[in-house]
Amino acid sequence: MGATPAKSPLAPAGFPDLPEIGGVEFAIAEAGVRYQGRPDVMLACLAKGTAIAGAFTQSSTRSAAVLDCQSKVGGDNSQGAAIIVNSGNANAFTGRHGLDSVNAVTQAVAQAVGVPEGRVFSASTGVIGEALPHDKINDKLTEMADSLSPGAIEQAAGAIMTTDTFAKGAGTVIDIDGQKLRIAGFAKGSGMIAPDMATMLAYIFTDAAIDQSELQNMVSVLNAATFNCITVDSDTSTSDTLLVAATGASGIRVSENNVGFMEGLRQVMLDLAHQVVRDGEGATKFIEVSVTGAASDEDARVHALSVANSPLVKTAVAGEDPNWGRVVMAIGKSGARADRDTLSIRFGDIIVASDGWVSPDYDEEAAAAYMKNQELQIHVDLGLGGGTSRVWTCDLTHGYIEINADYRS
Amino acid sequence: MGATPAKSPLAPAGFPDLPEIGGVEFAIAEAGVRYQGRPDVMLACLAKGTAIAGAFTQSSTRSAAVLDCQSKVGGDNSQGAAIIVNSGNANAFTGRHGLDSVNAVTQAVAQAVGVPEGRVFSASTGVIGEALPHDKINDKLTEMADSLSPGAIEQAAGAIMTTDTFAKGAGTVIDIDGQKLRIAGFAKGSGMIAPDMATMLAYIFTDAAIDQSELQNMVSVLNAATFNCITVDSDTSTSDTLLVAATGASGIRVSENNVGFMEGLRQVMLDLAHQVVRDGEGATKFIEVSVTGAASDEDARVHALSVANSPLVKTAVAGEDPNWGRVVMAIGKSGARADRDTLSIRFGDIIVASDGWVSPDYDEEAAAAYMKNQELQIHVDLGLGGGTSRVWTCDLTHGYIEINADYRS
Repeated sequence: MGATPAKSPLAPAGFPDLPEIGGVEFAIAEAGVRYQGRPDVMLACLAKGTAIAGAFTQSSTRSAAVLDCQSKVGGDNSQGAAIIVNSGNANAFTGRHGLDSVNAVTQAVAQAVGVPEGRVFSASTGVIGEALPHDKINDKLTEMADSLSPGAIEQAAGAIMTTDTFAKGAGTVIDIDGQKLRIAGFAKGSGMIAPDMATMLAYIFTDAAIDQSELQNMVSVLNAATFNCITVDSDTSTSDTLLVAATGASGIRVSENNVGFMEGLRQVMLDLAHQVVRDGEGATKFIEVSVTGAASDEDARVHALSVANSPLVKTAVAGEDPNWGRVVMAIGKSGARADRDTLSIRFGDIIVASDGWVSPDYDEEAAAAYMKNQELQIHVDLGLGGGTSRVWTCDLTHGYIEINADYRS
Repeated sequence: MGATPAKSPLAPAGFPDLPEIGGVEFAIAEAGVRYQGRPDVMLACLAKGTAIAGAFTQSSTRSAAVLDCQSKVGGDNSQGAAIIVNSGNANAFTGRHGLDSVNAVTQAVAQAVGVPEGRVFSASTGVIGEALPHDKINDKLTEMADSLSPGAIEQAAGAIMTTDTFAKGAGTVIDIDGQKLRIAGFAKGSGMIAPDMATMLAYIFTDAAIDQSELQNMVSVLNAATFNCITVDSDTSTSDTLLVAATGASGIRVSENNVGFMEGLRQVMLDLAHQVVRDGEGATKFIEVSVTGAASDEDARVHALSVANSPLVKTAVAGEDPNWGRVVMAIGKSGARADRDTLSIRFGDIIVASDGWVSPDYDEEAAAAYMKNQELQIHVDLGLGGGTSRVWTCDLTHGYIEINADYRS
């Protein structure tokens, strides 16, 4: 929340070229909510008929904006819709002021762009516990309504950044029976990232026509395997919000059983989720933890998150130390079923432990060399059953401490 | 596991003067298990009739020594008993070699000091996954058996240290109806510390005469409120062991209902538990998290540990930042029941948040000044019921990263 750290070494080369999505326009503004001299508000306007589905933080102290979005998702889509997001202030844990600000902003947006207030979705990200100066946002709405553009998605992605070191975008064009469908989205998030749900904020748009309830089913299923499988620091935000909007502008209708569309949406969600991990505060390594052979998928997930959240595992990765003993420790403490003597562990393709001890084939030099990679795989097989899980995280470094301890918020 | 960091700033002034416990003698040796030029083995011999109770890690990958101790606690105490502990090698996740080493050492100790093998309790602490060179320990047993002394408890405490920056001891003399009972113990531990159970290793001795099953009841109850209420990094060791031995040398018998003895033992256990936190890797602040007003005691404990384990809360404390928003976040993510609008938070005596928002009485300057203290209290009241919990932790600093990432194990 203080000085901006350098761009993450795990950042992609640049913001991707994203397809324009018919029925969606973006605008940004410098409202000065907290940050000065940079865009801090994003407005997206959606065509009539747009179906909107979502997934939200499970925090019991979730923000007023999250509660408001949850009540609106699935509403009547005969009119247009809008999404308004500010950075710098989370409007979370602000008592009755929280809802007052959400109402003030969503009413003003409804008026400015001519949609029902029940179709205006808001989000706020930044400092917790300070009243949102919502007039600063509302003062910019006319300017934003006049500058809406279908091509401004990268600018929109930039406006919602907080401690992010790069803007996160992903998209794809899907060919369905010779017809093209487009998906494009963006996300922000870098700390306070853990299931459920890890997103912080993500907005994804498609020109496919999809029934809202079917879209919601797809989003819920895919969210469980993408945004809900990442963790930076095991801390969960009060504001996490994912919205997926299907405008139908392509004229092509897809069902929730459309494998091609489902796969395209999954890729975009996973890409954005991975980018959030790649911007994990202080991250220098991108880690995939995969667990197989567990007694159940749920057990596999508990083990995978125990490894991914273990400070001792994460610091070992930061130190490029193939310290598989710490992986054993994390499996042992997870609470899910494990048997020391059927456990095996691989770092990438290197078998390090099996049958309850270091593998006779273990090559410590090869393991130490492997740990120098920027992208690492830790694989654990429990040897108990068919349960599997895969989660993604980053290492724990001095950078995390610097960002979160050395600067006053 | 690498270079030894400087003594923790939270360390007590020195090792305390502890009362000698009749029926207990200690010896140490430099066996060179891993460390060179320092004592790394501790032997304690206990008189006939000593009752021994224990508490152990709940890890599903617990070490062979832990499994062996668990099987022996509560056994026939008509003969003497012994405790043997080495540092430098944890003998954990070493396959069949683990049990072989435990058997080899406990057999040799039994022979060297003339007690049944079923009454020899062992523990090993240090690197995971390397075979224990148990002959190095066994080669020192005659030397140790010849140098047993009732006054060598401080030396014993030093011999079991690993990444500890100071030896941890605590004791008390209790007056029961004009008769004196003595309790003295020591502990080690500084990382991989979380319930259950947080101790790493702790050995406590008393000259009271107590029935083993009553002693076990006392230890289990007190452990839940002491060693199981500390967390350094949410990571749980595979080797955590607490043994409490009552020699009966005082000739005074106490029951599990003896309030004075119970309180004395509680103080010694809490003192040692706090010292483990004070030696938390990289710790610069000692933090008490107390939760009241929860729906149940169990809910209160879940909230308290969520706050105590949150990297964002711990880094905020390290940065002396009264960032109560992160406390709200940690309560929200815990999974236990919370209502944003009945929540209140105090830092020491400073009310920071109440009724779902920053308190009108909040004085940020006073809070910032409070955070400069070395000992801090974070108090959360849920406003829901009568559930309470209190746990202890330390901050998360560059020192933790240095110890766990910068040096190869």
